[in-house]
Amino acid sequence: MKINIPESDQERIVIVGGGFAGLTLARELKKQDYQVVLIDKNNYHQFQPLFYQVAMAGLEPSSIVFPFRKAFQGEKNIFIRVTEVERVDTAKKQLHTPLGLCNYDYLVLAIGADTNFFGNEEIARKALPMKSVSEALSLRNRILTDFEIALSVTDYERRQQLIDIVIVGGGPTGVEVAGALAEMKRYVLPKDYPQLPTDEIDIHLVEGADRLLLGMSDEAAGKAQEFLEGLDVKVRLNTMVTGFDGEVATLSDGSQIPAHKLIWAAGVTGNKMPGLPQEALAKGNRLAVDRFNRVAGTERIFAIGDIAYMEEEDYPKGHPQVAQAAMQHAKNLGKNFKRLAKGTSMQPFAYRDLGSMATIGRNRAVADLPGFKFQGAFAWLIWLFVHLFQILGVKNKVFIFINWVWNYLTYDQSLRLIIRPKEGPIKAAKD
Amino acid sequence: MKINIPESDQERIVIVGGGFAGLTLARELKKQDYQVVLIDKNNYHQFQPLFYQVAMAGLEPSSIVFPFRKAFQGEKNIFIRVTEVERVDTAKKQLHTPLGLCNYDYLVLAIGADTNFFGNEEIARKALPMKSVSEALSLRNRILTDFEIALSVTDYERRQQLIDIVIVGGGPTGVEVAGALAEMKRYVLPKDYPQLPTDEIDIHLVEGADRLLLGMSDEAAGKAQEFLEGLDVKVRLNTMVTGFDGEVATLSDGSQIPAHKLIWAAGVTGNKMPGLPQEALAKGNRLAVDRFNRVAGTERIFAIGDIAYMEEEDYPKGHPQVAQAAMQHAKNLGKNFKRLAKGTSMQPFAYRDLGSMATIGRNRAVADLPGFKFQGAFAWLIWLFVHLFQILGVKNKVFIFINWVWNYLTYDQSLRLIIRPKEGPIKAAKD
Repeated sequence: MKINIPESDQERIVIVGGGFAGLTLARELKKQDYQVVLIDKNNYHQFQPLFYQVAMAGLEPSSIVFPFRKAFQGEKNIFIRVTEVERVDTAKKQLHTPLGLCNYDYLVLAIGADTNFFGNEEIARKALPMKSVSEALSLRNRILTDFEIALSVTDYERRQQLIDIVIVGGGPTGVEVAGALAEMKRYVLPKDYPQLPTDEIDIHLVEGADRLLLGMSDEAAGKAQEFLEGLDVKVRLNTMVTGFDGEVATLSDGSQIPAHKLIWAAGVTGNKMPGLPQEALAKGNRLAVDRFNRVAGTERIFAIGDIAYMEEEDYPKGHPQVAQAAMQHAKNLGKNFKRLAKGTSMQPFAYRDLGSMATIGRNRAVADLPGFKFQGAFAWLIWLFVHLFQILGVKNKVFIFINWVWNYLTYDQSLRLIIRPKEGPIKAAKD
Repeated sequence: MKINIPESDQERIVIVGGGFAGLTLARELKKQDYQVVLIDKNNYHQFQPLFYQVAMAGLEPSSIVFPFRKAFQGEKNIFIRVTEVERVDTAKKQLHTPLGLCNYDYLVLAIGADTNFFGNEEIARKALPMKSVSEALSLRNRILTDFEIALSVTDYERRQQLIDIVIVGGGPTGVEVAGALAEMKRYVLPKDYPQLPTDEIDIHLVEGADRLLLGMSDEAAGKAQEFLEGLDVKVRLNTMVTGFDGEVATLSDGSQIPAHKLIWAAGVTGNKMPGLPQEALAKGNRLAVDRFNRVAGTERIFAIGDIAYMEEEDYPKGHPQVAQAAMQHAKNLGKNFKRLAKGTSMQPFAYRDLGSMATIGRNRAVADLPGFKFQGAFAWLIWLFVHLFQILGVKNKVFIFINWVWNYLTYDQSLRLIIRPKEGPIKAAKD
């Protein structure tokens, strides 16, 4: 059975994955002389930099995701399919999906990366990752549910276990989650749970290296740690989490932290695409690509974004796995497809670092921009506007802006809701 | 084990259920000389009149629900517990819950009503109800998922089955869902699914009586039907759905409608509370109460809202199971508790009908207000403002207002997102 997409005289480009890389490429290919098929397992694009705000009840999922069909309304050469790709058959130039086979003339893998548990099965089973809006929502439900349960627990140790949280990984995600939790502890929880000793909530941030924010400057890292400690986050450097059974986290120095929740933001690994040759695989399960994003050992297959491993003079270990690299890959490849169609030669990719930022809380952020580093309230304001500007959809921008102003003025988030669709009917939908 | 609530010299009123009745009563009891425990299985109040807009991707769940803890922040005599009541022990004046036993001096049952499938197990298993925000969200996910699947189906009959919808029950819910679906079919789906024959989507509204909106006037019913038929909804009166296996709906006239989705809004039945005496039970599984909302055959137990069956001179079959009756019960009972505390005598309840409304779509609503009936654009505007005014929370009002203006101007709903929390971590929370 073939996937049901109209026959066309145009060559078909199939993009797998609608994250920053895949979405940007599809937008570049609008109106180009190709038939474009965008495949994603969700019907929406997710704005990953704000997942932590969904997890912390500051924003609704709907504000940070955008339906693909709406993004491409009226684009006659773009076809969206919500499904998963099981494998690629490079010889037949075909993808296998539950909806049927999908032929391609060009294949672009923008399949991104997922949480890396470094092979620790127990942690993978018990820890809470935050690599999708669904996972962020689950984390929110979990935190709120545990507070509700804690209310009825009279045993001191057991109650502490329910309200304490361990965050693993001192990158931007870990730092932002820790900061947001610390603010929730300070401003929201005492009002919601007067019966709980909310000042006794311990927030642990555990990082294996000797500093936070490894991708950023020493100044940024130092200031981030100062901000976090000012908010009572217990930062532990040079420490790794070696085990977590759902009740107690074990650290590399042998010590233990009793905690019911462990948020894992300690690293990523490339998502898998069965059917590719062995030589395509690079470090971190990424796909080795040349300067034109062509996957090693394949024909007419490209990889862009977090999954792509491209060595450049200044980046001998590949580009950082961040949104701006993904979007730059996609833009260059989009232009190269235009060149291919015209019969001119493709241009190699060159990464341009636009800097990076992380926010810790109200008026507290750190920013490394090219040639200029700053921390504090101004960085925080810049952070807000950069993210507001990047999010897709005018209504999303409006809603996020109102939410932020609201939360800022009231010291409150009003989205502390444990909502989930009934499981019955959803399962039935998959019958 | 006892539920963990501080001892108090005040008498304890336990309210079970935080719908319109329970929430209104708890608000009446703020600052009164009682200790109040509000028990609900969710941590939020749900605004039922707008469930259909969540189902139709017009509003987000978070806009129409409100966290109890936020509603009662700073109220020292109100305690909220998120749990389910398993049964009542009237002799010991205790409730059994998974969090432990909960004593009461006064018990108020505001447990509402749930979908009534009239004993048809197959329909109960396969049909889609809409009595909670979770069910509304599931319905939305189901509709959108079926459209995605339909894209890959080339067989005409099978595809129709996926996109056609049967709605059972011509009350306000059925009428409002049918109208919203018809507008989605007309304005949204053709843009999102150019590959699907969206004009061939059949929307069936099946009602057992000889007219729609039984609780309203003939004029309202007639105009509602006219509006619906103008939007191509197939209205079938004097017809009942006798079976639905998930693929085909069977009607009382023997005819069949192949459809993968059947929305059931054909009636309600009171939620059960084990432990009450037999004589407390009235028609429709409601609880028989006197004019003071005291449950028959019990002591110090009250029932308010949809679950309460109170006969009045003008209402020999009990009050309509609507929000305004629930809120009026609650307000009267709240005042009676104040009188009890003062040692004065309680006042009997008297229902005051403030009229009813239903909306069919843009500029189309019907309204029966006391002494004055009207239909069309003005009724629609009134409907919007009445609902906006009633919804809890200023931010909710702002967000709903922006959404409505947005949808009105763009002929679009941008919330067509199939989002659900990951199942794994949520299950773990219940371990």
